[in-house]
Amino acid sequence: MGLLIQNVQLNEKTTDVLIEGNRFKSIAENIDVLGLQILDGSGMAILPTFINMHTHASMTLMRGYADDLDLHDWLENHIWPLEAKLTEEDVYHGARLACLEMIKSGTTCCNDMYWHFHGIARAVEEMGLRAVLSSVFIDFNDAAKAEEQRELTERLFEETKQYSDRIGFALGPHAIYTVSKESLKWAAQFSTENGIPLHIHISETQKEVDDCLSLYGLRPIQWLDKIGLLGPNVIAAHVIHVTDEEIGILARNGVHVVHCPASNMKLASGCFPFRKMEAKGISLSLGTDGCSSNNNLSMIEEMKLAALLAKLQHNDPTVLPARTAFEMATINGAGALGLDGGKIAEGKLADCMLIDLANHRLAPGYHLDEDMVYSADSSCIDTVICDGKILMQGGYVAGEEKIVTEARRYKKRFQ
Amino acid sequence: MGLLIQNVQLNEKTTDVLIEGNRFKSIAENIDVLGLQILDGSGMAILPTFINMHTHASMTLMRGYADDLDLHDWLENHIWPLEAKLTEEDVYHGARLACLEMIKSGTTCCNDMYWHFHGIARAVEEMGLRAVLSSVFIDFNDAAKAEEQRELTERLFEETKQYSDRIGFALGPHAIYTVSKESLKWAAQFSTENGIPLHIHISETQKEVDDCLSLYGLRPIQWLDKIGLLGPNVIAAHVIHVTDEEIGILARNGVHVVHCPASNMKLASGCFPFRKMEAKGISLSLGTDGCSSNNNLSMIEEMKLAALLAKLQHNDPTVLPARTAFEMATINGAGALGLDGGKIAEGKLADCMLIDLANHRLAPGYHLDEDMVYSADSSCIDTVICDGKILMQGGYVAGEEKIVTEARRYKKRFQ
Repeated sequence: MGLLIQNVQLNEKTTDVLIEGNRFKSIAENIDVLGLQILDGSGMAILPTFINMHTHASMTLMRGYADDLDLHDWLENHIWPLEAKLTEEDVYHGARLACLEMIKSGTTCCNDMYWHFHGIARAVEEMGLRAVLSSVFIDFNDAAKAEEQRELTERLFEETKQYSDRIGFALGPHAIYTVSKESLKWAAQFSTENGIPLHIHISETQKEVDDCLSLYGLRPIQWLDKIGLLGPNVIAAHVIHVTDEEIGILARNGVHVVHCPASNMKLASGCFPFRKMEAKGISLSLGTDGCSSNNNLSMIEEMKLAALLAKLQHNDPTVLPARTAFEMATINGAGALGLDGGKIAEGKLADCMLIDLANHRLAPGYHLDEDMVYSADSSCIDTVICDGKILMQGGYVAGEEKIVTEARRYKKRFQ
Repeated sequence: MGLLIQNVQLNEKTTDVLIEGNRFKSIAENIDVLGLQILDGSGMAILPTFINMHTHASMTLMRGYADDLDLHDWLENHIWPLEAKLTEEDVYHGARLACLEMIKSGTTCCNDMYWHFHGIARAVEEMGLRAVLSSVFIDFNDAAKAEEQRELTERLFEETKQYSDRIGFALGPHAIYTVSKESLKWAAQFSTENGIPLHIHISETQKEVDDCLSLYGLRPIQWLDKIGLLGPNVIAAHVIHVTDEEIGILARNGVHVVHCPASNMKLASGCFPFRKMEAKGISLSLGTDGCSSNNNLSMIEEMKLAALLAKLQHNDPTVLPARTAFEMATINGAGALGLDGGKIAEGKLADCMLIDLANHRLAPGYHLDEDMVYSADSSCIDTVICDGKILMQGGYVAGEEKIVTEARRYKKRFQ
């Protein structure tokens, strides 16, 4: 059975939108088909949902657990010891909370990296979202650990096939300082051979750059280029401490770059060179990172932060306008993940949201894209649809109370 | 009749909170008084509401009207021509929309500066908020204009007495580049003599500093100190382009400084020297500025932005922790305005909000202050009380639909 959204605003015009299966079938006035589920879109605008391009979704369990700390104190004394305790069941509950938050804030797809793969996959599958999931690959230059990680990756790649088409698999070599050269090369080859993304942190901190320079005499991107890891399958998160030459290398290799402004600011990681990246035509998308360095998964906030930070940093209020921020949060991510979505158009994947135009944050309402980037919050989103299915309506997600109740149990357990 | 909030969380403990008139009368377990209005606070936490220390509230009418533009293009070709058209009735509707947005996002008091004083005062009065209002004083060194502005100020000061105690009057000399030295001195004297605040923009742009240096051979704060304007009655917004010596002058004079991170970033104005200001013990609060340079009035967003920006700018994730951001958004503003509020304590003004602890953004819930600063959005706020009266309950403000409908009419009129 199809889903017909009637009388909804699309680019300032009233239209009907017909979804059949998981795709937009037809966008036209007065669509008249029998036997459809009808959704009244009056007073609402339809927009593509967000694609969060760098998450560690289950870290919702660490939201507000340890803030305002020095990076090493934070990681070594708080985050890592807690992560070591997490079971697949914990990760499942954390991912459920993350999925709920994503739906509520208009995100229907994430590019995730974390441990306990099936805990996350199960949550995403049940909650109806789309995700590209990578199991964190870390070997710390230990050959036995590397072997174990390679086997795990091969197994998970096969096991992912048990899930629906909404779940994709990606390689997740964590970073150059946690993964051996051999494993990085293996991951690159596995990714290319199987036509799947490779998700990695690159040049997030100055320390990473300094360590790479002293080990190899090359900067991280120079070194990754040398070992043959870079290509259009690579999704690189953060990418802050880079030279013009490195930006050129990224552009030449068609690497997709994910900007994570909230995380970069909160951890004082550094400033993303937006203008230089944009000038080189690099594919740029947005990610929230995990909830312990943000502390939410709101792509609305991430769009605003990205735009505001770029303007301040480049001393130019015309840099990174609202339209660009919105594209970074939607269609650019789709491009990086190879998804046929990220926009409202016939034939595309039916991932969309209905925005309540009567929300006070959107009044007077001169430009919806600017209002979504600079003014909106989650209260503006009425309905969320992923893969043709309604996940939220009237701001309500089925079963949300239970998800929050489960998550709140972790307060007592971990505090 | 009093208002009794039962079984609410205050600092992680369950308590009752009794409000009598416009003050917190008693905070204790199991308060038992007959004839009270009862509010069930189960599953909710009580927090002080926010004080937005720098607004041009009626600029909600310009939300999303002109974004991502060069400062002079923005002001001269878009904002000023539109402002010239505004009537008192327009300003009233803009302020109503602003009040609605403030209530929805947990703000019950603002320090505002705009034209058409009574349009704003009437909206604030009707909507039940608290505000300190200043009429923009601009004379452009024209003696006749200055005389007219002084008369207007004196008249409005008297006329403000017709409103309730929730409405205060302040001097609002716009800035050193729009107000003559004589008028600034007059405003300082009027403010001191009448014991009311003086609200002014200081050193928001480098141009302001450069122009002041070429005119007077002094930087703005040096010059304002010389003419005797600075004192503990002064509330200075922005204050970005300042030297260590100027920060010392502000501290010595007890000037209250309002940080407006969203506006400063969006207009690429510059970086606020948070750490130096804090080190000198200056009273620091937060403001959203107007909706054409933000584009909302969310103090939740402003807290997060302030914290994140300070960490990035000072390359230190421990700077401006959540607790400090929360104080800047609440009690520090109360101090600057001379309000006996900004905290939940017996005897204080009953301005508070109830936070829905079952909101997914606040789970697992380790630290409410960190969650409010780094994760929350307006959807976490259930109830808002100002001056002992309930302004929002269950997320709903009486008459909100009509306010938005009125505001949306401006889209057609101004676009």
